[in-house]
Amino acid sequence: MPSFLRYALTPFLFSLTFATSTASADEGWWTFDNPPSKQLQERYGFTPTQEWLDHLRLSCVRLNDGGSGAFVSPHGLLLTNHHVARSQLQKNSSPQHDYLRDGFYAAAQEQEMKSPDLEVNVLVSLENVTARIQDALKNITDEKKALAARKEIIAQIERQSLQSTGLRSDIVILYQGGEYWLYRYKKYTDVRLVFAPEQQIAFFGGDPDNFSFPRYDLDMAIFRVYENGKPIASTNYLHWNVKGAADGELVFMAGHPGSTSRLHTMAQILAERDVIDPIVLSSARQRISVMKQYAAQGPEQARQAQSRIFGLENGVKSTQGGYNALLDPHLIAAKQAAESDFRKRVESKPEWHTEFGGAWDAIAAAESKLSSMIKPQYFRQLDSQLAGLALTIVRYVTEIKKPDGERLAGFHESELDSLRFSLFSPAPISKEMDQARLSGALAESLAQLGSDDEWVKTVLEGRSPDTVAAQLIQGTQLSDPKFRKTLVDGGEAAVATSTDPMIALARKIDPVARKMLKLYEDQVQSVTQSAGEKLGRARFLVYGNSVYPDGTFTLRLSYGRVAGYPMNGTKAPYKTTFYGLYDRAASFDFASPFELPARLKEARDKFDLNTALDFANSCDSYGGSSGSPVVNKKGELVGLNFDRNVEALGRRFVYQEETGRAIAVHSGAMIEALRKIYGAGALADELEVSSH
Amino acid sequence: MPSFLRYALTPFLFSLTFATSTASADEGWWTFDNPPSKQLQERYGFTPTQEWLDHLRLSCVRLNDGGSGAFVSPHGLLLTNHHVARSQLQKNSSPQHDYLRDGFYAAAQEQEMKSPDLEVNVLVSLENVTARIQDALKNITDEKKALAARKEIIAQIERQSLQSTGLRSDIVILYQGGEYWLYRYKKYTDVRLVFAPEQQIAFFGGDPDNFSFPRYDLDMAIFRVYENGKPIASTNYLHWNVKGAADGELVFMAGHPGSTSRLHTMAQILAERDVIDPIVLSSARQRISVMKQYAAQGPEQARQAQSRIFGLENGVKSTQGGYNALLDPHLIAAKQAAESDFRKRVESKPEWHTEFGGAWDAIAAAESKLSSMIKPQYFRQLDSQLAGLALTIVRYVTEIKKPDGERLAGFHESELDSLRFSLFSPAPISKEMDQARLSGALAESLAQLGSDDEWVKTVLEGRSPDTVAAQLIQGTQLSDPKFRKTLVDGGEAAVATSTDPMIALARKIDPVARKMLKLYEDQVQSVTQSAGEKLGRARFLVYGNSVYPDGTFTLRLSYGRVAGYPMNGTKAPYKTTFYGLYDRAASFDFASPFELPARLKEARDKFDLNTALDFANSCDSYGGSSGSPVVNKKGELVGLNFDRNVEALGRRFVYQEETGRAIAVHSGAMIEALRKIYGAGALADELEVSSH
Repeated sequence: MPSFLRYALTPFLFSLTFATSTASADEGWWTFDNPPSKQLQERYGFTPTQEWLDHLRLSCVRLNDGGSGAFVSPHGLLLTNHHVARSQLQKNSSPQHDYLRDGFYAAAQEQEMKSPDLEVNVLVSLENVTARIQDALKNITDEKKALAARKEIIAQIERQSLQSTGLRSDIVILYQGGEYWLYRYKKYTDVRLVFAPEQQIAFFGGDPDNFSFPRYDLDMAIFRVYENGKPIASTNYLHWNVKGAADGELVFMAGHPGSTSRLHTMAQILAERDVIDPIVLSSARQRISVMKQYAAQGPEQARQAQSRIFGLENGVKSTQGGYNALLDPHLIAAKQAAESDFRKRVESKPEWHTEFGGAWDAIAAAESKLSSMIKPQYFRQLDSQLAGLALTIVRYVTEIKKPDGERLAGFHESELDSLRFSLFSPAPISKEMDQARLSGALAESLAQLGSDDEWVKTVLEGRSPDTVAAQLIQGTQLSDPKFRKTLVDGGEAAVATSTDPMIALARKIDPVARKMLKLYEDQVQSVTQSAGEKLGRARFLVYGNSVYPDGTFTLRLSYGRVAGYPMNGTKAPYKTTFYGLYDRAASFDFASPFELPARLKEARDKFDLNTALDFANSCDSYGGSSGSPVVNKKGELVGLNFDRNVEALGRRFVYQEETGRAIAVHSGAMIEALRKIYGAGALADELEVSSH
Repeated sequence: MPSFLRYALTPFLFSLTFATSTASADEGWWTFDNPPSKQLQERYGFTPTQEWLDHLRLSCVRLNDGGSGAFVSPHGLLLTNHHVARSQLQKNSSPQHDYLRDGFYAAAQEQEMKSPDLEVNVLVSLENVTARIQDALKNITDEKKALAARKEIIAQIERQSLQSTGLRSDIVILYQGGEYWLYRYKKYTDVRLVFAPEQQIAFFGGDPDNFSFPRYDLDMAIFRVYENGKPIASTNYLHWNVKGAADGELVFMAGHPGSTSRLHTMAQILAERDVIDPIVLSSARQRISVMKQYAAQGPEQARQAQSRIFGLENGVKSTQGGYNALLDPHLIAAKQAAESDFRKRVESKPEWHTEFGGAWDAIAAAESKLSSMIKPQYFRQLDSQLAGLALTIVRYVTEIKKPDGERLAGFHESELDSLRFSLFSPAPISKEMDQARLSGALAESLAQLGSDDEWVKTVLEGRSPDTVAAQLIQGTQLSDPKFRKTLVDGGEAAVATSTDPMIALARKIDPVARKMLKLYEDQVQSVTQSAGEKLGRARFLVYGNSVYPDGTFTLRLSYGRVAGYPMNGTKAPYKTTFYGLYDRAASFDFASPFELPARLKEARDKFDLNTALDFANSCDSYGGSSGSPVVNKKGELVGLNFDRNVEALGRRFVYQEETGRAIAVHSGAMIEALRKIYGAGALADELEVSSH
């Protein structure tokens, strides 16, 4: 960890900006109903029209595996990152075909490869339902009752919307409850892979180079979206600009930044630093170690584990970066100053003081309770895909019998379609790997919670983690999607009488888990939701709408400029070239993770190595922004966002203008690679049909 | 300055080692009488023989312009950095021939170009004279008397040695006075340039990339040393190993690190941080600004100013890096801990306490006096080459009349030869540029000291800096070396009656300057020398000889391994390749300072771009180490040291094992460049005659 800690102290000295007050700089992931038009006009003399915004929004896609993408052709071609497609590549691979390692190209449409369980969403409408929800909560002062009423009204709005429109309908909570929006999505579930390069070039430099720049990754994948067995006709798609963007040019990014903490109170931030992050990091490192031991057993095990190891390592590096940011006293001081300013303004008016003044202390009290329950929350989990399926099935049959508003999160009427889609996924499950995961996690739970813990006793019954994992995994039939469907279709009776050991265990631990959840809802969630709503409303009163909400894995618009930055005593350039790829490989003597795929070696003299490969830009981004299209003022595709630099790892909490950068694949590099490296000229032609 | 400050807080958290106590890691610049044999054996299983050490020492060369070098052929070829040769390249250039910009190659020996005023030294013997000097100081308790006696005995030893051996003889003060050594040098003054590349490839990336890695510089120059009009026959020279060194390989560096502060007391370090560095930096930035304004006037002005701008910017980046290190509370705390340990050990024995215990407080008191005199010391200077010559001449004629031991530093009998060599240098002096310098510096002195300052009044006499500079520079004949010689030969009478305005001014300000010097000697130098000697002796008693002395621009041996390091969230490789050069140029769209010289563009397909260009290693180094040969265990040349990375900028105070690296040109890159880029195959052949 020394190599991480070093960065901890650096990136936050200058140009810190905070979402809590008025955003300045190229900061923010803005909702499409509240675009940063004022900032864009002031900084760049550009104001997007409603048509421009609508076109971009409707061209964008959320991939529910956890990333973003965009339509790039009138026939459903969908561009995203290789590392967003990674999970589907893994699921489609086998000992015979390792598409993750070797890449994939469907030269003809009939070769396009269906993804087992990828759902993608297009945000077709947004509706502010804040008033409706606030109405339903009016006059309820008890926080637990408010929690229930909130659940109820949200489930109702979602259900009614789904029933009336047929569209996926999600309530999105923005500004910690300051606003509630109904987002309706056109949903696609027939998503077929057209092209992916080798992971070694998509993720060149591996974990070391992850979250760093200069970078030399061709982190792209192309799907085609089908409906009724045919490619969709996308009327909204981005035109491909092969020239890319120039140094200093204004660009935009539209995608789905995941959960962030920029509007969190100090109490919440300090809980992340002192309680949550250390547990998350230690547990993830433990899991990486288990997976690496598993992968070391042989090439097939390594193949199975590669996607999961990537995900865990990616998470650790990102979380550690955010954690490091919190260790920087300058960041803490600046956050404290921003909160003090907000609080002082609230206290300045007696009516604000009365309505909102207690919210910070209420959250602080709830966070202090959370601290004591975080460890059981975290380690009373079975880290196993099959165990996860078992618990979902056990809950499913019970929950759907309840009134919609009383169900557990994830089981509301509006969510069931997507849930079943993933529950019955035909993607193969390696029992061998799942057993290794489960065994390792059980050992960790035992170590962390002790053998007297109620949950540990229930699961282990005095046996060793290895024994329990072996018995559960070897005995269960849940790896068969048909078996899962039979259970679900059989309902409560089938589940209650099932002798499948994993189902049996899930039945036993579900009450313990529900008890924990109840405790969390009563003592923490109900309080922070109510107080969060107050602060959300107070923020609008104090700062107006010059604020953007924290990331919620929903569609946002960021803006910024293509730009290098001061780095490590010198300047990082705004872009890299293919020359740099060959340099970095050779400078490590082609040792892993810097080896060059064979196709790259062969193509060495077939194209101009001056071709731009990746570029840096100041658009605000976070996990979930992966795969976001980067567009110019004309709305043309100039790049494909895939990462941010180490200086931007604190973006969970702050935007760092001077050195924080998002990193994208250059639009020209993708076309050049398709044509010259992958012999995928037909695909390049299709992409370039309407290019500029 | 934000971009500097960022690094300030980073490099010193880990693996800090301090020369004050036992050195560990690959730390230290060791004298050849006390090589780090124990550490080498323990860490690398290698013990250099006396023959190995002698051969390396006698192959090494000090270039008195301020760098290091080595003989690399039996016929006097001397390898050093382009930026060490830069000053001579500048002096040999003219509006018609800009060798700095365009490079130089003498295809035949008769074309080799004589350097106007380059003296090089080879250390032929070392003699410990500590006892002799301590004897002379014995029983002198008054510090001012001790200062005089020390001067006297040093001058005497140097003079006697010069007279008896004919060799340049310098007393070197090591360990702050813990040891005194007589170093005898074979001196050469006929040093001719054989090859230099364009500065744009020697210093590719300019000031931004200076002190950074990965790096892509061909920072080399080759001279040939002559004696009596013929190339010398060097029996000691390094064999060229074109394969270079592998990742992790043990390598050595032998060169001349300049003045450092690793053994300084806390009081001295804090004075550097709080008093000296801020003034040095502010003044140097002012001078850069003046030179850049001058250079902006036209191409000829730019040509004249380029070497000076490089020197100033190089100094600022280095000083700022050291200053930033001092702003790191971890470094200060670690330094404090080291001093406390040393002090506690001294206090632990009554006799040590009595003899040495007062030294720290004595130094602290002197430093506090220094603080009040540093500003006048610094700004009562005429930043002008011609003014410098004038003051030297005025003092010369007086000083040489005095007994040797009583003269000002620089005018002792043993120093006169070298002084005259530089004083009468035929190198051209641009009066136009010198006037710009002088005018800018006078304005700064006026601003800093005010118009009532004694020195300012003497110089300006109420006139403007511009007026005074114009009158002095336009009126003086000192740019003519013959005129200088006439004055010196004319002695005190000629100088006293000279109507040259610069000489006249020098006569007027010399008394003020001498008064300041006297004050400094009485209140600071005499105290710190006496106390420094005490601490030097105490250090040996406490820590034995496992200590190396601070840099003194005398020959030292460093060791380490070829190694990458954790950098900016990822890994820096151990080497770079020519691919990286083309990448970095293209990634900045070939904009200055990243443009590629025409020869590099033309050579693009003539050689393997996988060829290593530069490499990083953990050898300890500092300013003055530039041009040091990097050799392997066999003593073969594998690289040419030219820089250190930003993480090593704190080397004035500490060695940073984890990330601090020296940077060298790869031996193979130099040969490849000579053959494939510069058509200098004959020179490459001569270098490779005895290569391995």
